[in-house]
Amino acid sequence: MGNQIIRDRLVKLRKMMGEYHIDHYMIPTSDFHNSEYVSDYFKTREYFSNFTGSNGTLLVWQEGAGLWTDGRYFIQAEKELEGTGVSLYRMQEEGVPTIEEFLKEHMPEESCLGFDGRTISAKLGKKYEKALQEKKIRFVYEKDMAETIWTERPAFPAGRAYVISDEIAGKSVSEKLCEVREKVVGAEGFLLTKLDDIMWLLNLRGCDVECNPVAMSYFYMDADRKVLFIHKEAVEGTETVPGAERLQLKLNYDCVGHLKKCGVEIREYDEITAFLSELPFKQKVLLDERYCSYTLYKTLQTRLGETGVISGHNPTECLKAIKNPVELANMEQIFLKDSVALTKFIYWLKTNIGKNDITEVSAADKLEEFRREIPEYIDLSFPTISGYEANAAMMHYEATPERHAVLRPKGMLLVDSGGQYMGGTTDVTRTIVLGPISDEQKRHYTLVLQGMLQLTNARWLYGCSGRNLDILARKPLWEIGLDYKCGTGHGVGYILNVHEGPQSMRWRFSADAAEAVLEDGMDITNEPGVYIEGSHGIRIENVMVARNDVKNEYGQFMHFDTLTWVPVDMEAVDLNILPRESVEQLAAYQKKVYDKISPWLNEEERGWLKHETEV
Amino acid sequence: MGNQIIRDRLVKLRKMMGEYHIDHYMIPTSDFHNSEYVSDYFKTREYFSNFTGSNGTLLVWQEGAGLWTDGRYFIQAEKELEGTGVSLYRMQEEGVPTIEEFLKEHMPEESCLGFDGRTISAKLGKKYEKALQEKKIRFVYEKDMAETIWTERPAFPAGRAYVISDEIAGKSVSEKLCEVREKVVGAEGFLLTKLDDIMWLLNLRGCDVECNPVAMSYFYMDADRKVLFIHKEAVEGTETVPGAERLQLKLNYDCVGHLKKCGVEIREYDEITAFLSELPFKQKVLLDERYCSYTLYKTLQTRLGETGVISGHNPTECLKAIKNPVELANMEQIFLKDSVALTKFIYWLKTNIGKNDITEVSAADKLEEFRREIPEYIDLSFPTISGYEANAAMMHYEATPERHAVLRPKGMLLVDSGGQYMGGTTDVTRTIVLGPISDEQKRHYTLVLQGMLQLTNARWLYGCSGRNLDILARKPLWEIGLDYKCGTGHGVGYILNVHEGPQSMRWRFSADAAEAVLEDGMDITNEPGVYIEGSHGIRIENVMVARNDVKNEYGQFMHFDTLTWVPVDMEAVDLNILPRESVEQLAAYQKKVYDKISPWLNEEERGWLKHETEV
Repeated sequence: MGNQIIRDRLVKLRKMMGEYHIDHYMIPTSDFHNSEYVSDYFKTREYFSNFTGSNGTLLVWQEGAGLWTDGRYFIQAEKELEGTGVSLYRMQEEGVPTIEEFLKEHMPEESCLGFDGRTISAKLGKKYEKALQEKKIRFVYEKDMAETIWTERPAFPAGRAYVISDEIAGKSVSEKLCEVREKVVGAEGFLLTKLDDIMWLLNLRGCDVECNPVAMSYFYMDADRKVLFIHKEAVEGTETVPGAERLQLKLNYDCVGHLKKCGVEIREYDEITAFLSELPFKQKVLLDERYCSYTLYKTLQTRLGETGVISGHNPTECLKAIKNPVELANMEQIFLKDSVALTKFIYWLKTNIGKNDITEVSAADKLEEFRREIPEYIDLSFPTISGYEANAAMMHYEATPERHAVLRPKGMLLVDSGGQYMGGTTDVTRTIVLGPISDEQKRHYTLVLQGMLQLTNARWLYGCSGRNLDILARKPLWEIGLDYKCGTGHGVGYILNVHEGPQSMRWRFSADAAEAVLEDGMDITNEPGVYIEGSHGIRIENVMVARNDVKNEYGQFMHFDTLTWVPVDMEAVDLNILPRESVEQLAAYQKKVYDKISPWLNEEERGWLKHETEV
Repeated sequence: MGNQIIRDRLVKLRKMMGEYHIDHYMIPTSDFHNSEYVSDYFKTREYFSNFTGSNGTLLVWQEGAGLWTDGRYFIQAEKELEGTGVSLYRMQEEGVPTIEEFLKEHMPEESCLGFDGRTISAKLGKKYEKALQEKKIRFVYEKDMAETIWTERPAFPAGRAYVISDEIAGKSVSEKLCEVREKVVGAEGFLLTKLDDIMWLLNLRGCDVECNPVAMSYFYMDADRKVLFIHKEAVEGTETVPGAERLQLKLNYDCVGHLKKCGVEIREYDEITAFLSELPFKQKVLLDERYCSYTLYKTLQTRLGETGVISGHNPTECLKAIKNPVELANMEQIFLKDSVALTKFIYWLKTNIGKNDITEVSAADKLEEFRREIPEYIDLSFPTISGYEANAAMMHYEATPERHAVLRPKGMLLVDSGGQYMGGTTDVTRTIVLGPISDEQKRHYTLVLQGMLQLTNARWLYGCSGRNLDILARKPLWEIGLDYKCGTGHGVGYILNVHEGPQSMRWRFSADAAEAVLEDGMDITNEPGVYIEGSHGIRIENVMVARNDVKNEYGQFMHFDTLTWVPVDMEAVDLNILPRESVEQLAAYQKKVYDKISPWLNEEERGWLKHETEV
């Protein structure tokens, strides 16, 4: 039997591959900008495999198909791939080949690899070129197979963009352009293809990717001109951002006026290829191979030659990651309000569980209701993960109206959620006790908490990256032979993507991954966890900001400030196994939560929080 | 006034530089094999600058001279350079240029940089080539200026080499050659220039560098031949290793017979250049640019062309670093005996301080006496660092008969020492309380101890390097704004160099430094410290071995086993500031010290140790 819908689609795909003499066809999870999350138009990989996770590459050949994804999604992918005939390749597990290794081994000499070159980064494309050179593999990258097969494909995203005021952004576009220009060294032109970087640079926001306030666009600048390539509907139409009517804030839709003032010319989104093909021959252009598509890279290379394309990291990346004082002040306020919403939700959940019918989905909806009460609220920053008991063991589980658990007054509910606000993007996880839990669950919760607190408490010398600090969060788990198969934390955008680089908290870096020094003003999540398949999942997540501390003969010391103030669930803490230092830190955190949050609560909630925060 | 001897030497050097039209002359601390420690013949940098540290580069130009060294030596270098006219450049301090940056800035276009190409690694030479290319700097690297100026230069080292039996080595030469051959990929030939790697590979030892049992040599192998380039006196003479007569072990001097059995041809040390110049044209040769001299690299490049020289790490490096079961078993025994010697010494020191005249030097001598009682003892593994009070703040201080402190019944003596034994190389540091110490000293000692214990206790997933773990040792110091300006630990050779790679325990890696995953069987020191200039220095150092632990769905967990069993000085520990976990770990360590060491002590010593190890 199996999943006949997917099987049928794969049959069509294989037929078409045959027509084009393509031996292996690769479908990554990406739009034309190598965005982490993509709009429905780009969910081709999901269309052909049924796997819905945010990271994964599907590879199809005549006799089979494989899906590569990372540790966060192993459990979920196993379920979703059931019956599709697609095999799961668990990335980074022992003995599992990378896609590259797989292709090298399985593709016949002089055969053909197909993919849509717009959905593969230049970096990845070049890597495959190199790896498959020896076998003389041809690339067919001009063809998007889904175009023909996927008849009910959603429209290409072109939603309304809006302008962020300087008061909210903390820095004008001209200041930002000036900073960027200083960092573009060794090239006359700079091609920016990463959506959130373009939004940051131009103080724009959009609504083309669910939960990510970005507009599909490209940006190019040199000494003579600054050009934004964007759909006309996005900047000129009369439509508004969906749901914006309920916003108590009015959005400024005058993108045209704003861009004109900044000296930025507007062109149609699709004109980018033609534009690049006509750049002056001798021009040198800086681009970031991680986010520039293979197709655009090839276009530029054809026009400018090997030496005309200068590869480097977007200078916008680091500028954007270091939050400016205005952003930090706004974030402090927004995180406080977001923490209030979550705290109210926890109270509501704990008092209503067992009395009313609550499901994973309705709980998440209720939480969004609390968030909507905040005047600055725009949208969720990612689909809420609301996982009850064993479902929480799937790191990026998403309950749906069709498939979800009903909550009962026992065990725990893991809720990982966040909001987009005019003033910041939040991301917070709490694992909430709904009733009796096992000793093991309590022990795991306590160790996760200990790791979270230890990392929060870190003090380090400038020069450290997440690589150096990660062990502080993992140590309590490693000591008893547990681990979580993902990083400990990631940067968070400012009214932008919830995942942002270059900062990252993880002990293992691949050769590809940039390892960024933690700079004063960079924000990062702190979210260790325990995931026991079929049993339970626990994660506790706060957002922190790296700050300069004392500077002395040894160098610049640094520490983290916390932005998230949501109570830790004391019902799940075993104080006996927590070191004295952690107990003191926990008590101080809980007290601060009470002090900061209680003024925003009603009397009933306040009384509960008082009790809840006692250590 | 100043140091007239050094000033005179620099005058001669500058005169000669003028004759050769050399603008800047560079003198590193190195022999022809980029060894970390060098025989007296190679102490040219010391000859021209008076700086005696193990790491430093002297740069001389007509108007001045500069010495670059690292954090371990700042205090010492300041003192030694006094009056020489040589300025100190503190490496890695803010605002201090690297030599490369300095040369780039100060050398006139088309001027000339001089150095002895045999004392600069190919890697460094190529780096300078690249950096100074733009300014069209010429290199004169065929000239060793010291040859003429340094009239009383010591003889070139060519001491006696000897053979290590398979029972001690744990692996025969043919097994090792086989393992190496498997790892030489993409090249027919393999040129090995690193002295300790050659010794390890051929189960030989020498005595050409103080405390480092290596013989000056080169090794080359391809499918047809294996050739050792070594001085005739080293393998054929009738001399013996100095001091070997007092050894209770008889050394096997039959290198010729041994090498013949292994199929290794012997040639004269100096023949290497001619030999390489005559290699078959099409031969590809693997070499390690870090240890191959610039001169030999250029020779090979001239003969084989750009594509004939394959750069890579010595495959011997990692094979040597992972100690085999026989080596580990021998090390366990040797470290125990070495720990007994140190424990006896501590008892002797504590009971005699204030009664007899003891100096930093006589204390070190007494310690060596205890080591000499061990039948397997060969030599020190490095000159003992015996630093009293403020002298201990100089990380690599060396007391001399001319300049040393007299010990008094107050404060602390830092003793960092180790031995070469037939069965292992040791390295251990204890900071010993001689009488009243300040509260600050006690606090610092306790925090250093806490860091040392935390790192010992580490449990991690396979894949971590020292980079990930280092913070465990540094954390207690970083928390109060202190640091030590060096790594936390290094690999230790087996009857070889006390500093060995590729493993290393440090949080900061330069782009140059290899960062090695900790493998099962790799040994590493654990030696955090506090160094307060003009006041005191504290270091506690044990040697540990990385071992595999549980393997489960998360991966291969690992932990450290300890090899060093010398009591921690409880008089310097403030139990009140030590976390409970550390107190328990300390108690367990002290108990193990008593259990392991007491059988080797006399009654008096045993009674003292019982008391000393009570927590």
